[in-house]
Amino acid sequence: MSRKISDSTVRRLSLYLRALESLEAEEGGEAGAASVSSRELAARAGTTAAQVRKDLSHFGSFGKRGMGYRVPELAGRLRRILGLDRSWRVALVGAGRIGAALFEYADFRRRGFEIVQVFDVDPEKVGRRWNGVTIEDGSRLEDRLAEDEVEIAIVAVPADAAQEVVDRAVSAGVRGILNFAPARLRVPDDVVMEDVNIVMELEALSFALGRDPSGSGGESS
Amino acid sequence: MSRKISDSTVRRLSLYLRALESLEAEEGGEAGAASVSSRELAARAGTTAAQVRKDLSHFGSFGKRGMGYRVPELAGRLRRILGLDRSWRVALVGAGRIGAALFEYADFRRRGFEIVQVFDVDPEKVGRRWNGVTIEDGSRLEDRLAEDEVEIAIVAVPADAAQEVVDRAVSAGVRGILNFAPARLRVPDDVVMEDVNIVMELEALSFALGRDPSGSGGESS
Repeated sequence: MSRKISDSTVRRLSLYLRALESLEAEEGGEAGAASVSSRELAARAGTTAAQVRKDLSHFGSFGKRGMGYRVPELAGRLRRILGLDRSWRVALVGAGRIGAALFEYADFRRRGFEIVQVFDVDPEKVGRRWNGVTIEDGSRLEDRLAEDEVEIAIVAVPADAAQEVVDRAVSAGVRGILNFAPARLRVPDDVVMEDVNIVMELEALSFALGRDPSGSGGESS
Repeated sequence: MSRKISDSTVRRLSLYLRALESLEAEEGGEAGAASVSSRELAARAGTTAAQVRKDLSHFGSFGKRGMGYRVPELAGRLRRILGLDRSWRVALVGAGRIGAALFEYADFRRRGFEIVQVFDVDPEKVGRRWNGVTIEDGSRLEDRLAEDEVEIAIVAVPADAAQEVVDRAVSAGVRGILNFAPARLRVPDDVVMEDVNIVMELEALSFALGRDPSGSGGESS
């Protein structure tokens, strides 16, 4: 499928999946296929029924007219669409405070993102074990990434070290980067990168709060 | 200033400020005003010189033609524009793993975001002290937020509790929300909200990696 799917569509697919999973949980052990209308799904994901139908239409046909969607089936298809029906080998580069918090974050594993390698350049940290994973020396990054066929690297190093880490990870075959460094990094076209910068999110808040509050909150979806 | 400034412009202002601060650090103790060209600033922020000039032009005139920008002066103006020349009273709602990592994150304080209150509903946690801040019972949220005139709330509670927390925070006068719950929340027009969802960022990566036709493990559906 070469149609371009927008980032905000993908974000909504994640929200739909969460809504479906909480519906599944609410249904408890009950057998049978619970169904959900596009309207209810929209309400739970904070959007409109038309948006739900439009988002899903990119990926084929779902549900029956007037019948709504079957919850487990749609959840399964969304997991496949989002690449969550498999596991991903992930390396964490940078074992500082953010790195540690990310490593501990159970939701990654639950979603199939397995942190199989951790790297740091601090000799004090190298060799320590985090829940079965030994922190390795950053100098071995390329070799080790390639060896274990790591697919995604989480970059949690200082800004001035981040581009080099990304270049080396890409040269070792990594195709996805989740960047926590406060820097705009460059990757080749066939590599995908997402940025997370919590302080910058707070700065965007303080920027908006400092201005006229009536001009805020606009979302371009 | 009623002109709408895009989210991506604000993100770039944050990146320019970081670039300027690292320039200041590199200059070390040297006196005098180091200057930087829009071209160098652009290179450090991963954008173009034209974009730098355009972004800054929203906020008045900066620098002299052919002279570049004076580093400390531009950094100071960016801090004011971003609302970082003051401190913000922040409450953290949710003292779980993410909440704890956020609380420990020194960069918040460095940027003027002071976490002055922490709330949780778990009786095991309420009453504990985190570095001078006592974790308070979530039932007291509105009273305490209003009492200390908290301006920003960081919401780090489970998805199904998040909307209620936000509604209560807003009713207590909070005008900025940083949301870590995997849910699309609603706020009034005069409240600004930014969402951070790390698992959803990873899902966006796995989505993109799964679609890449050159992919190793990718599915062609």
